[in-house]
Amino acid sequence: MKLITIYGSSRKGGNSEALAKIALEQLDNNTYKEIFLLDYNINPIIDERHTEQGFNHVKDDYEELITDILNYDAILFVTPLYWFGMSGRLKNFIDRFSQSLRSPHYDFKESMEGKKVYLIIVGGTMASITALPLVQQFQLITQFMNMEFSGYLIGKGIKPLEVLDDEDSIIAAKQLGKTIRKDLTE
Amino acid sequence: MKLITIYGSSRKGGNSEALAKIALEQLDNNTYKEIFLLDYNINPIIDERHTEQGFNHVKDDYEELITDILNYDAILFVTPLYWFGMSGRLKNFIDRFSQSLRSPHYDFKESMEGKKVYLIIVGGTMASITALPLVQQFQLITQFMNMEFSGYLIGKGIKPLEVLDDEDSIIAAKQLGKTIRKDLTE
Amino acid sequence: MKLITIYGSSRKGGNSEALAKIALEQLDNNTYKEIFLLDYNINPIIDERHTEQGFNHVKDDYEELITDILNYDAILFVTPLYWFGMSGRLKNFIDRFSQSLRSPHYDFKESMEGKKVYLIIVGGTMASITALPLVQQFQLITQFMNMEFSGYLIGKGIKPLEVLDDEDSIIAAKQLGKTIRKDLTE
Amino acid sequence: MKLITIYGSSRKGGNSEALAKIALEQLDNNTYKEIFLLDYNINPIIDERHTEQGFNHVKDDYEELITDILNYDAILFVTPLYWFGMSGRLKNFIDRFSQSLRSPHYDFKESMEGKKVYLIIVGGTMASITALPLVQQFQLITQFMNMEFSGYLIGKGIKPLEVLDDEDSIIAAKQLGKTIRKDLTE
Repeated sequence: MKLITIYGSSRKGGNSEALAKIALEQLDNNTYKEIFLLDYNINPIIDERHTEQGFNHVKDDYEELITDILNYDAILFVTPLYWFGMSGRLKNFIDRFSQSLRSPHYDFKESMEGKKVYLIIVGGTMASITALPLVQQFQLITQFMNMEFSGYLIGKGIKPLEVLDDEDSIIAAKQLGKTIRKDLTE
Repeated sequence: MKLITIYGSSRKGGNSEALAKIALEQLDNNTYKEIFLLDYNINPIIDERHTEQGFNHVKDDYEELITDILNYDAILFVTPLYWFGMSGRLKNFIDRFSQSLRSPHYDFKESMEGKKVYLIIVGGTMASITALPLVQQFQLITQFMNMEFSGYLIGKGIKPLEVLDDEDSIIAAKQLGKTIRKDLTE
Repeated sequence: MKLITIYGSSRKGGNSEALAKIALEQLDNNTYKEIFLLDYNINPIIDERHTEQGFNHVKDDYEELITDILNYDAILFVTPLYWFGMSGRLKNFIDRFSQSLRSPHYDFKESMEGKKVYLIIVGGTMASITALPLVQQFQLITQFMNMEFSGYLIGKGIKPLEVLDDEDSIIAAKQLGKTIRKDLTE
Repeated sequence: MKLITIYGSSRKGGNSEALAKIALEQLDNNTYKEIFLLDYNINPIIDERHTEQGFNHVKDDYEELITDILNYDAILFVTPLYWFGMSGRLKNFIDRFSQSLRSPHYDFKESMEGKKVYLIIVGGTMASITALPLVQQFQLITQFMNMEFSGYLIGKGIKPLEVLDDEDSIIAAKQLGKTIRKDLTE
């Protein structure tokens, strides 16, 4: 089984990425892939669910990305805590799932069903509390898609790479990595 | 006192807009303004908080919009419930607040402090439950900014204008409108 | 179909009861019954799930109450917001459900399945926000029991009968009453 | 600085107690005390906030307990997850804080202010998600009392001592113990 990691941050080399790397170090190199949304062009959704012709084709990178993701058994979402939620970039990506639900090219719901989902959030001092609505949102998303929400962690760090000084965050990242490794080999 | 309404939907004339109109009908015409994010170009944030030169100027409509908003005493956010959160479009807008916090042109935190915030969310059958993490997120946002979260409502409607058939939603919208009117005249 | 109302308050004639009465006025008299936990002796659970002999009989009023409740199609829980949760009295009552789950006298889970659940909470100024974890807890309880969480309202009032001065609360109570009446006649 | 641990479980030697012991092993013996609510008689609150004479004296162990607790600098609450909340026993105890807020014998709010609060919850497989409303409730309680919510953990275990087989829970307990030790020596 294989994992795809989706980074929602608005910059490379940030705290959430650094923490995810610690989790990923627990995995064999050939069992995971990483995608930085920053490297792709993803438009906000245009809601055409209720128009006669349905969704129009959008000229951006969404379809390529989501088609790739469908090949993986597990997804690790990684996002900094921006304004007590996921990054707008990641939200735009997830909003487009509504388009995939109506895609004629694949059965999105059936393809996503049963995939395991993990979540890494990094925020400020109080993030262990203030990130909880975001964790609950992912619970609702995975529940709706019949995916398995199999682990999350909330790391602490604001200044560049500060998270690497936080023992709690690092230990939690290692544990999450072990959980993922175990899940992938089952 | 005056209200600015910010629509986060990805289409015009949708359920959340229709419900907001019912609330706004309670107000005098000259006491509020409406903004549709869909009419503006707002880029996702590029996080440059920790770079030497700080945030670079971004060529889009954000600064014009936020500068306008600072003139109002109260903000009504209106969003459909997309994947159990606000629309990515609205999230991108709010993410940019981080840039405003470091703006040399105005004192963002001081200017926003004390403004009243209202929230209208419209989602599916279970939205009264599944929208609660989003309500909690707005509570955290307003608390961080020392704004006053003074009312919210969760409407029910998926198909076009379905919300207008839901008596509970309509009555709640009228009540929220009355609350806003009262707050504006105090 | 019939409704049973369970009051968790620690005193008679309080705000939560007053608000519930407004909802109940929408129903025909012979379609509901009211129970005040205050009138009964309900012990905290003694966890004997994992003992060999299972739960011992407890000499209090719990079994009589729960056996009665099983006869109803819908349950309205009414509680003041105490320390951002339901009253300890009501929590003790619900904790005992664990004993019912192992009762040899009835199939608790099967009997509760499909019953509709409503919730009225009354708290202070910020209760519309600070009561949300309690709403989420009821969502989890009803989901676990395969019950239908069909409506809730959060009223505002601290001083005796203050809730009756809050127009929002009264209107919401009437709407909840109408919802219950409609559900009962379906 | 010293810690008091308050166990809310309805039986001795359960999972939540076992996990708390692992955290407490990180502390020096003379820096903490343990209290099992099970060993005390604590009545549900009778709400007399709004009566002329205020709260009547209650003949149980509450006042003795709370007076003792005021001597400590930090409190560790330990509870199994019962019906997605704290035990009714612990809730009854906390409900009585309302009585302490009006006590003529001490200034409850001033005495509790600034104390650090930790929380250990143990629940079933999904507890890392389903216990979040309870964590949020404690955040609200500590915020109201101007206490510092300085750490929590959600362990996993249903069958007797099952939590001791869960590596994640044990590692998290050790980390929480280290945090407490550090806080106590600052």
